[in-house]
Amino acid sequence: MPKLWTVPPTEAMRADGLRVAELDTSGTPGFTGGKKAGVPLLAERAQVLSDLQEKLYANGRAGGDRRNVLLILQGMDTAGKGGIVRHVIGSVDPQGVDHAAFGVPTPEESRHHYLWRIRKALPRAGQLGVFDRSHYEDVLVVRVHNLVPPTVWEPRYDEINAFEQELVDEGTSLVKVAMFVSLDEQKRRLAERLERTDKFWKFNPSDIDERAFWPAYQDAYQAVLDRTSTEYAPWHVVPADRKWFSRLAVTELLIAALERLDLDWPPATFDVEQQKRRLARA
Amino acid sequence: MPKLWTVPPTEAMRADGLRVAELDTSGTPGFTGGKKAGVPLLAERAQVLSDLQEKLYANGRAGGDRRNVLLILQGMDTAGKGGIVRHVIGSVDPQGVDHAAFGVPTPEESRHHYLWRIRKALPRAGQLGVFDRSHYEDVLVVRVHNLVPPTVWEPRYDEINAFEQELVDEGTSLVKVAMFVSLDEQKRRLAERLERTDKFWKFNPSDIDERAFWPAYQDAYQAVLDRTSTEYAPWHVVPADRKWFSRLAVTELLIAALERLDLDWPPATFDVEQQKRRLARA
Repeated sequence: MPKLWTVPPTEAMRADGLRVAELDTSGTPGFTGGKKAGVPLLAERAQVLSDLQEKLYANGRAGGDRRNVLLILQGMDTAGKGGIVRHVIGSVDPQGVDHAAFGVPTPEESRHHYLWRIRKALPRAGQLGVFDRSHYEDVLVVRVHNLVPPTVWEPRYDEINAFEQELVDEGTSLVKVAMFVSLDEQKRRLAERLERTDKFWKFNPSDIDERAFWPAYQDAYQAVLDRTSTEYAPWHVVPADRKWFSRLAVTELLIAALERLDLDWPPATFDVEQQKRRLARA
Repeated sequence: MPKLWTVPPTEAMRADGLRVAELDTSGTPGFTGGKKAGVPLLAERAQVLSDLQEKLYANGRAGGDRRNVLLILQGMDTAGKGGIVRHVIGSVDPQGVDHAAFGVPTPEESRHHYLWRIRKALPRAGQLGVFDRSHYEDVLVVRVHNLVPPTVWEPRYDEINAFEQELVDEGTSLVKVAMFVSLDEQKRRLAERLERTDKFWKFNPSDIDERAFWPAYQDAYQAVLDRTSTEYAPWHVVPADRKWFSRLAVTELLIAALERLDLDWPPATFDVEQQKRRLARA
């Protein structure tokens, strides 16, 4: 178990049975240290993550290993998804990262099945994929705002489970993370975006409108956790009021996923001693 | 001028008139410090690069600014292109990076014009694009190994210039970097890949074969510099025997390109005070 955790992060944040409305968004489930211990630990574990990612990449490139890891990030505005990308994914080699963000569908995307744009963005072999929002938007914002009738979004939970089973069968390890901040913390973060000229670009007046839909979003997230947290692709719920904790938590979840792949460096596909002799002469 | 440079990096490494065969690959053109000064300076300048990149990204996202920056990396095996991606590009937010590597063309790519795969990978507005190898392979390896006759590759120089003019007209700042290591340094780096089990995957026996083509590559690179270093898309030549220097040099070239864009944070597209009042009530 990683240092300072009393329960492995994969267990401590597992969604099973969790009630979204009752979540302590300022909690640090399973972690006994505070910020003072968490920040240096994050730097240390980022290096572990980076080393594991390089092995994944090496196996995809040279080892013919088609496996990969896909981090799916969901969360309300200001939950810190962008910070995870910048500070957690930012600690690994950019060559090995396939990043995609899913906003409001483009006109072209809208003409296709909602999984169309998702399939196009799936990570390549050996890559660490990151989805900033994902196909879950189609049972979250779409459900909350009645963008399609229930007869359309209702079957999507099963469809998503089938889709993810397919991904897992193809060699993808899914790390699904739902990040939650409190309404108060969200207000604080939105206020900051209105105070700083270097943050205006991150603000959208509709972010304030969305706050009125908080209970509906909680229900929609609850349904996602209840219906799409599977053995092969479980959800993890990360309290996100404390940025240092959410970053540490996601780092640990990624490390755990990579460790489960039991990766080694790809063996040489050539005679090492012979190549040394050739090189000496070249 | 950045600290410790006697000549601005953009000038000190400009390709104009440079003879590839005479290059001191262990040099640090324009830079007066050694490794001891260069390493901490690199960390400091990486932060400057990261801040500028965030402004570029912000303007692409919120400001409707279609401009972007594209780093084109060329260099022989072991020149350190991957290290630039990992250590220089790795210092900025992954969300703002569009990375593409161009290896031996796939069967599908081979059926198209050589610029087809390049056009598909061009960076989006506000992004920092990185090409690890590029369309220049089609006048480098292709020329050296006679993969097509001279009548085919010869017109490509002009075609590339026209293509790059088009990119610049569309708002792309091109930062073209050719990295050179000495044959001795390359031998040392290849030997390391044969000594360490965690490096085997980076080694390819054909890397040794390519060493025999060194003079032909020098000629091909010379033609690239002579014929495609334009006012609007100049080449920079970076001596790469010292990794800390090549990383610092590319960092400075990117900073200079971003500074030329004269970016500011996008202004608010909403009434800030009104939104503050709305937020207070929400």
